[in-house]
Amino acid sequence: MNKTSRIITLTTDYGLKDSYVGAMKGAILSINPLAVITDISHLIMAGDIAEGAFTMLAACAYYPNRTIHIGVVDPGVGSSRAPLLIETDKFVFIGPDNGLLVLAAKKAKIRRVIKLTNKRYFRDDISQTFHGRDIFGPAAAHLSIGVNPDELGVKLKGKPKEPDIAHHTIKHGVVKGLIMHIDTYGNLITNIPATVLKTRTVCVETLGCSISGIRSTYSSARGKEIIAIIGSSGLIEIAANMASAAGILNARRGDAVKIRPIK
Amino acid sequence: MNKTSRIITLTTDYGLKDSYVGAMKGAILSINPLAVITDISHLIMAGDIAEGAFTMLAACAYYPNRTIHIGVVDPGVGSSRAPLLIETDKFVFIGPDNGLLVLAAKKAKIRRVIKLTNKRYFRDDISQTFHGRDIFGPAAAHLSIGVNPDELGVKLKGKPKEPDIAHHTIKHGVVKGLIMHIDTYGNLITNIPATVLKTRTVCVETLGCSISGIRSTYSSARGKEIIAIIGSSGLIEIAANMASAAGILNARRGDAVKIRPIK
Amino acid sequence: MNKTSRIITLTTDYGLKDSYVGAMKGAILSINPLAVITDISHLIMAGDIAEGAFTMLAACAYYPNRTIHIGVVDPGVGSSRAPLLIETDKFVFIGPDNGLLVLAAKKAKIRRVIKLTNKRYFRDDISQTFHGRDIFGPAAAHLSIGVNPDELGVKLKGKPKEPDIAHHTIKHGVVKGLIMHIDTYGNLITNIPATVLKTRTVCVETLGCSISGIRSTYSSARGKEIIAIIGSSGLIEIAANMASAAGILNARRGDAVKIRPIK
Repeated sequence: MNKTSRIITLTTDYGLKDSYVGAMKGAILSINPLAVITDISHLIMAGDIAEGAFTMLAACAYYPNRTIHIGVVDPGVGSSRAPLLIETDKFVFIGPDNGLLVLAAKKAKIRRVIKLTNKRYFRDDISQTFHGRDIFGPAAAHLSIGVNPDELGVKLKGKPKEPDIAHHTIKHGVVKGLIMHIDTYGNLITNIPATVLKTRTVCVETLGCSISGIRSTYSSARGKEIIAIIGSSGLIEIAANMASAAGILNARRGDAVKIRPIK
Repeated sequence: MNKTSRIITLTTDYGLKDSYVGAMKGAILSINPLAVITDISHLIMAGDIAEGAFTMLAACAYYPNRTIHIGVVDPGVGSSRAPLLIETDKFVFIGPDNGLLVLAAKKAKIRRVIKLTNKRYFRDDISQTFHGRDIFGPAAAHLSIGVNPDELGVKLKGKPKEPDIAHHTIKHGVVKGLIMHIDTYGNLITNIPATVLKTRTVCVETLGCSISGIRSTYSSARGKEIIAIIGSSGLIEIAANMASAAGILNARRGDAVKIRPIK
Repeated sequence: MNKTSRIITLTTDYGLKDSYVGAMKGAILSINPLAVITDISHLIMAGDIAEGAFTMLAACAYYPNRTIHIGVVDPGVGSSRAPLLIETDKFVFIGPDNGLLVLAAKKAKIRRVIKLTNKRYFRDDISQTFHGRDIFGPAAAHLSIGVNPDELGVKLKGKPKEPDIAHHTIKHGVVKGLIMHIDTYGNLITNIPATVLKTRTVCVETLGCSISGIRSTYSSARGKEIIAIIGSSGLIEIAANMASAAGILNARRGDAVKIRPIK
């Protein structure tokens, strides 16, 4: 990767009502007025690092090479947690060292991990509560005008922190996982990649409901039938057609899901 | 229309919380990093084609000629419904053939309707559930870098599907319509264009409320008075000043509205 | 200030569901397709001028010099309230003369205040209800392509209207203020600038709760402890770590806050 692009994405828990996103964009544009800032989401639940990490995982990979992805879900802002830059073969990720960036970053080869320490590239007057505006945004903006990542800080000692996300397990052909995310349609996205299933002739069990087989489209469900499907990120998803599976099943994030082959 | 512009608008029911809008924008920028992507709304009610069609009708016309408007409210994603491109004298519209695009498209002269079939312009690995990212976004991005619409597919056989939207009727001088949309202020937007009224000396009746005359401004209402007004899209609107007419009248979409001349 | 930039920010109460923001952006891009339009917030409470003014105050200053900031929280749209342009040493502000723009504008030196009267720079067909699309957006777009502010109208007679915002008072060393804003995290932002406190050895009293001292970071709070902190705009803020202070204290905008030195 020679140079970063001028495309900068934002994934935060800042919400859309307050001035925070607007101030952060201003801080970026003040350094690089030609930056192209794109929102992934600002509605991550406050402080929910796992949800932020999953959202970045699901969206960042679709951007052009050299895009700079900023993530700010940062309950430890102002504490000793390090501000990070992770450069991979494809992208640069910038945000707090709390696990937020790592899922998305690991989809490519990690080249270097920098702890942002060079105050020359921060805002002059750093708050203890708003590092998106004062550290992460400015770091990304400087990168986007050609500053070398090495100038922004020092090599991180040790490895970046991992997010606290449950992984599926497989035992005797039975896959156990959980509902990782409930989307705007009420679809239940599990942490089970379709690629771990050796057959589509399976039974998906969750919340007292047994679903036979993996369908291809939402619209193949009849009435309020609950179906299983391969979602757009390649994960097994439990869904209904024109209805909320979450509502029908009264599902919550973290609820268990089991997939077993049908003999 | 010689060439499309690099401005691409998005109207979807993807919501603002999930990764979907972000992934779709990434897919567009990966093909044309110079695309200017503008959001119209991502908060169309899930699967509500009529609301999406009305929103596109109310916003698309204000864009520069040659803008590419993508609409994705697509309950039939992955089924046999066709992915469409509709080119008019002014704009290009891209989205599912379910009525979503037609209201806005018909405001200008339709030049050609293409069924998107050329997989060369789709993403390599098409999901059955996310055509915004995998088909519609990429088609728009390719157009914006100069690909000819004819290259993207074949002429649609028959006409594009119409949306299921109620039209007003006029009989013996009495106009009958309904509340088509309730906006963020609680204004009730009807499906009755102001142009069909021959006089402003009318009585507007809805939900047991009789309103005399058509006012010019919200602020002409006194207290919580309910007034009728010509809204910003030229439709008759029922409103209150600094208060929600929807809340005061307990109104819902689809409620009947009648306008009769006062003798 | 020689020329305005092509960066235009928007702060409105239009909401994100309706077509309004999308139509306004279209109206701007139709005049200047190269405009870079950035959202500050569209979720200001309907008609809440004070909240809009506070949001603009908190975000606008971070933008590059010559940015054009549009604000539209405009309950008097269509009435006799004037449409304004306020030019300062740093920025141009455009919006209704109802106090919305003044807080942010006063952070720099005001150079001229223009009442927008030149219909040549409005949309051809002006509605009485949507001046963001028909007057403010077009005025900003014309400025961004080099039109001189003086061409857009005439010098305003008198001063622009002030917003109805409560100021803190200081008497015998005791600072009295109120909760001006509750943010997405439930932090309570007061109208008391940290700079008016002569010491951090203070007691902050609100809603029956006495808080000792001013902390530096959210994460210094233990459990659901309520703390006081200097927020990102330099105002005293009442917060909890990983929890909503607003929820814990059952706080509302306007609730009283008192800060007294501890002897």
